[in-house]
Amino acid sequence: MTRDRALALDAADPLAGLRDQFELPPGLIYLDGNSLGALPAATAARLEQVVAAEWGEGLVRSWNSAGWIDLARRVGDKIARLVGAGAGELAVADSTSVNLYKALSAALALVDAAAPARRILLSERTNFPTDLYIAASVARERGFELQFAEADELPQRLDARVAVLLLTHVNYRTGRMHDLAAMTAAAHAAGAIAVWDLAHSAGAVPVDLAGSGADFAVGCGYKYLNGGPGAPAFVWVHRRHVERVAQPLAGWLGHAAPFDFTPDYRPAPGIARFQCGTPPVLSLAALECGVDTVLAAGPLGGMAALRAKSLALSEEFIAAVEGRCAGLGLTLVSPRDGAARGSQVCFSHSGDGYAVMQALAARGVIGDFRAGSSGAATDETAAGASEDGPAALPAILRFGFAPLYNRHIDVWNAVEQLRQVIASGEWGEARFRTRGVVT
Amino acid sequence: MTRDRALALDAADPLAGLRDQFELPPGLIYLDGNSLGALPAATAARLEQVVAAEWGEGLVRSWNSAGWIDLARRVGDKIARLVGAGAGELAVADSTSVNLYKALSAALALVDAAAPARRILLSERTNFPTDLYIAASVARERGFELQFAEADELPQRLDARVAVLLLTHVNYRTGRMHDLAAMTAAAHAAGAIAVWDLAHSAGAVPVDLAGSGADFAVGCGYKYLNGGPGAPAFVWVHRRHVERVAQPLAGWLGHAAPFDFTPDYRPAPGIARFQCGTPPVLSLAALECGVDTVLAAGPLGGMAALRAKSLALSEEFIAAVEGRCAGLGLTLVSPRDGAARGSQVCFSHSGDGYAVMQALAARGVIGDFRAGSSGAATDETAAGASEDGPAALPAILRFGFAPLYNRHIDVWNAVEQLRQVIASGEWGEARFRTRGVVT
Repeated sequence: MTRDRALALDAADPLAGLRDQFELPPGLIYLDGNSLGALPAATAARLEQVVAAEWGEGLVRSWNSAGWIDLARRVGDKIARLVGAGAGELAVADSTSVNLYKALSAALALVDAAAPARRILLSERTNFPTDLYIAASVARERGFELQFAEADELPQRLDARVAVLLLTHVNYRTGRMHDLAAMTAAAHAAGAIAVWDLAHSAGAVPVDLAGSGADFAVGCGYKYLNGGPGAPAFVWVHRRHVERVAQPLAGWLGHAAPFDFTPDYRPAPGIARFQCGTPPVLSLAALECGVDTVLAAGPLGGMAALRAKSLALSEEFIAAVEGRCAGLGLTLVSPRDGAARGSQVCFSHSGDGYAVMQALAARGVIGDFRAGSSGAATDETAAGASEDGPAALPAILRFGFAPLYNRHIDVWNAVEQLRQVIASGEWGEARFRTRGVVT
Repeated sequence: MTRDRALALDAADPLAGLRDQFELPPGLIYLDGNSLGALPAATAARLEQVVAAEWGEGLVRSWNSAGWIDLARRVGDKIARLVGAGAGELAVADSTSVNLYKALSAALALVDAAAPARRILLSERTNFPTDLYIAASVARERGFELQFAEADELPQRLDARVAVLLLTHVNYRTGRMHDLAAMTAAAHAAGAIAVWDLAHSAGAVPVDLAGSGADFAVGCGYKYLNGGPGAPAFVWVHRRHVERVAQPLAGWLGHAAPFDFTPDYRPAPGIARFQCGTPPVLSLAALECGVDTVLAAGPLGGMAALRAKSLALSEEFIAAVEGRCAGLGLTLVSPRDGAARGSQVCFSHSGDGYAVMQALAARGVIGDFRAGSSGAATDETAAGASEDGPAALPAILRFGFAPLYNRHIDVWNAVEQLRQVIASGEWGEARFRTRGVVT
């Protein structure tokens, strides 16, 4: 790969025009869309409309006249199209953590009713921490035991004691991607329910929730869906379950007739019962603009085309780092096989990865850094029996590829900056700076 | 009262200038700030800054550089000043419903540990429905019984079986206001914990949470706090409890060190443990602008001055309706005693109240309508024993008075329009229109 070749690939890229949907700071190479997606160009004007016209002029009447009351459903139907769900099957609400609480509560209640001997909630130790915290809380409340398995051990750990398998489709650190259909089938074969977190996959990789037969899913609005910081999240329940499940956050907007103001709770038909309180309309309106940027890829091949570009960018990046940065202490941590990788690539560094990432940011290349941990007991039994010990994890430099706006030339330039940062030793200066929060 | 007298009162009102903080549609009389507060003039520019500069330019770096990570705490500290709480004691997060779930779960767990024989969660049948739905859900999960009492019966119903008393400070329909300190003291005297919903009081009436000794409170950001549609809500826990309570929505932002990404949950010190997922930053930024409009009253006498103006407006309204609209079928439903009333006034109408309110809206006066119900068993025993039956409630016309932006002349004009609507019979035409959602 050369710089000219990268430019030629961009010139020939049928998706290249999708980048014009975003406001991107000139000169910045943004490889952190897996943490916070970029700003859609449409968002500012839409928010101005919501604020000035709908809220300012319409005031409370806008719940009807501006359709606020239907907004969550409309955005939910749009996200549904990106993850293989049907209209009316996916609710936009609350945060990913809150939605996971609802989904796990509903899933474990299903098992309690149908197979009360199953008492294990199985997940991965390297799952995103908030998923583990919520899982631990729900398991404790409902009398289940949270156990962890390494990814490769999951199939053998799925036995007659497992009630629910909770997995994040794409690992937030390594980018390792589970085969959603295969793991769902394995869970079902063992008699367990599969709950998926799509935080790092919705909008980045094709997901076929209905086709995979998954049971429950949640996901995030502010990563590849470009919904803005803290955008509302989503929750999906397979239609074979939804009419017979309940979730404990029984707020009024999940009621069958919220505006009847009856004192007794009667869950709404379908996924609307996973709503709780009044949605944050401003953030919800911004989320719709973000989702629209992904739907705009539809006529160009949709998620399959975005996935193909994401894989191309990721593989160029791996090849370039391993080629042009050879001998500089970088080691690939993400799966080398693209089919087992989401839309991000991680490397460990033999020196101070945090300082390298800071120096890189100073040069206008934004990725992020995840600290490692020395780990505790790592044999399977101990890992399964205890929630206490962190897994042994290397510190990583994480680079996300958002095929809607990242270009081949961004990959080329980012690797060039990375090479110069490490080769020059300038990252050594950054290590003495105050460490801020890494998000 | 005459029109000239109303204008003179406005001219002499030391709070009159606070109205300039809002963008209000010309010619509209907005008496529904208790449902959705008006748009602050500062909000649009602040959101533009958050969107264009902080999100668009800063991207993920803004969690640190723009202080997003501290925003919820900053806004929480501001709301705390309005409800008699200390800095660091109140968390802005999620919706009122979700926060009530956290507060009730924590409160009932406290009782389970300290007084396991207490199994009743006591509330009012006319409490806002989402409070009742959440209360019923939490009670069911934790093995408590939800019982209802009429407001006047509460003291005698507080006995050794009651674990938690859940009340909304100001009733969403009638505006009836409990004596927060006295009811808290009565609950404590009976050995129960007091949980308050301040949805219709924060920003409208003085509240002294710490001084009253209340145990838990939640409240709403989009009514008198002017935070915008679906603005984040808040939750407060008295400092004598907070370090020893847990809440089940144990998401990462309630963790003591969320960015350490450890697999085990360790609650943050203080109220931060009532955080869960990533907050909706756009809606949160708008909420701060709204809260600032209330804090701006501080140098002019703060909540006490706002309360005095609210009472004056409300009493003018009652007197004018009962005087100028005499014989038109309107009957006061709210308490006549201002000390027992929040910042809203409700009347029933002998005809079709919905149609009256629609016709009034067509004339540029916005209040809202709440349907009635025929009621079920109303004797105390049946009411206490069953969750099923709605209370017998008249349909009401509800008018909220937001002392930050409502004027004496608004009261005068609103009553004049109301008189003309009913006297002319034009409301009869509105009854045939399609009924929309009333929020």
